Amino acid sequence: MVETTHPGNIGAAARVMANLGLADLRLVRPRVFPAQDATARAAGAEHILEQATVCDTLEEATAGCSFVIGATARRRTVGSPLLEPQNAASRLIEASRHGSTALVFGQEAAGLTNEHLDLCHSHVRVGVEDDFPSLNVATAVAILIYEVRRQSYSHAPSEDNGCEIDPRLKGTVPMTVSEFERLMEHLERVGHRTGFLVGPRTRLLRKMRRLLRQGVCSQADINIIRGVLTSIEHTIEKGEASGER
Amino acid sequence: MVETTHPGNIGAAARVMANLGLADLRLVRPRVFPAQDATARAAGAEHILEQATVCDTLEEATAGCSFVIGATARRRTVGSPLLEPQNAASRLIEASRHGSTALVFGQEAAGLTNEHLDLCHSHVRVGVEDDFPSLNVATAVAILIYEVRRQSYSHAPSEDNGCEIDPRLKGTVPMTVSEFERLMEHLERVGHRTGFLVGPRTRLLRKMRRLLRQGVCSQADINIIRGVLTSIEHTIEKGEASGER
Repeated sequence: MVETTHPGNIGAAARVMANLGLADLRLVRPRVFPAQDATARAAGAEHILEQATVCDTLEEATAGCSFVIGATARRRTVGSPLLEPQNAASRLIEASRHGSTALVFGQEAAGLTNEHLDLCHSHVRVGVEDDFPSLNVATAVAILIYEVRRQSYSHAPSEDNGCEIDPRLKGTVPMTVSEFERLMEHLERVGHRTGFLVGPRTRLLRKMRRLLRQGVCSQADINIIRGVLTSIEHTIEKGEASGER
Repeated sequence: MVETTHPGNIGAAARVMANLGLADLRLVRPRVFPAQDATARAAGAEHILEQATVCDTLEEATAGCSFVIGATARRRTVGSPLLEPQNAASRLIEASRHGSTALVFGQEAAGLTNEHLDLCHSHVRVGVEDDFPSLNVATAVAILIYEVRRQSYSHAPSEDNGCEIDPRLKGTVPMTVSEFERLMEHLERVGHRTGFLVGPRTRLLRKMRRLLRQGVCSQADINIIRGVLTSIEHTIEKGEASGER
């Protein structure tokens, strides 16, 4: 981060770096650092702040890097290609196989100067609305790191991040087709009893089947619905019995 | 945003919404709002704050929505599928063709409660490091909106991109959150009547909610289930009336 004015932004950037698995923060001539605001906004990511390197020039900060991308709000930059976040991230990931890489962010109001941008191999611009383009620098850090992480994970082999396994099936016994068919027969019996079904195989029953098929997936689910149906039958029978008395 | 503690986070969220082209911010019981911190962090996006709707409940805030995704830090949630940002964004984009959609964010420290998550059709978790998982809420807003925008633009214009339209929704009117909540209230009434529910808000009711949520997606679906419930009520009443005679 180059010449950052508000230390809160340094803290916020440190926090999202820690969230998303980065650790090496370099600060080029920050206006105030260390600072209480930075520590507060880091919200526990003080280790990133404590290990941060403070440098005099961007050249010094990126000296060991083989690939550097500078973030800019400009629609046109000179010298190096201007990429979208997706392309920038994929080049960064590719380059990181061969050496150190860096993402560079400028001062809040002015952004990176031409001299800074000249030090970068590529430039990246987060697409924003024309009528409200001013992106907070820590938000830009978050979005670009997120994009790098997203692509790193989606390219990675056999990565299980805990998502996308149907959570409804965890620790349950899946239902079989015939268990579901018994459920539908039970529903059909109750349907005739209460009069919401008329005739043998109604269109309504097919719709109910479709509705339940989406949500019911385990034996425990089947038991819930069958329990409900049984309680309805009992309530109706009790009413009828008292009517016969 | 639900029960947001720090108004600065509301402002930061408003700013990134304006950057990325969203305008409709709804605040459920914010601790302080309007607030100087919110305005400061909005950095020019005051129009989003001024137009923001303050609501008493999440149900009220999402009443007109046909698809709602809740952001959570939990690795497991009950009831609805837990998605990664990419899948969450693509479902949101898809659903937005049929009706209003919402992304929901909880209180900074506690996140969304189970009751809030129950109101959502899906849940989303931004992948973070296990040893530093606490993502700032405005950062989560930024990442998820960025992901939605990224996909909207890359899939862009009106072309058949292989994204399947939910066949269940063809030619139907999507249900809203409040229509579904009325259905659950009807179910609860019948449940107490027949005795399958005991007490005010049982675990069983939550499970029923989950089962129905997966399958019920249109107003026609709602009408089917409510028709069934009404027929059960009538049958029970008839039995009781004959008992009283």
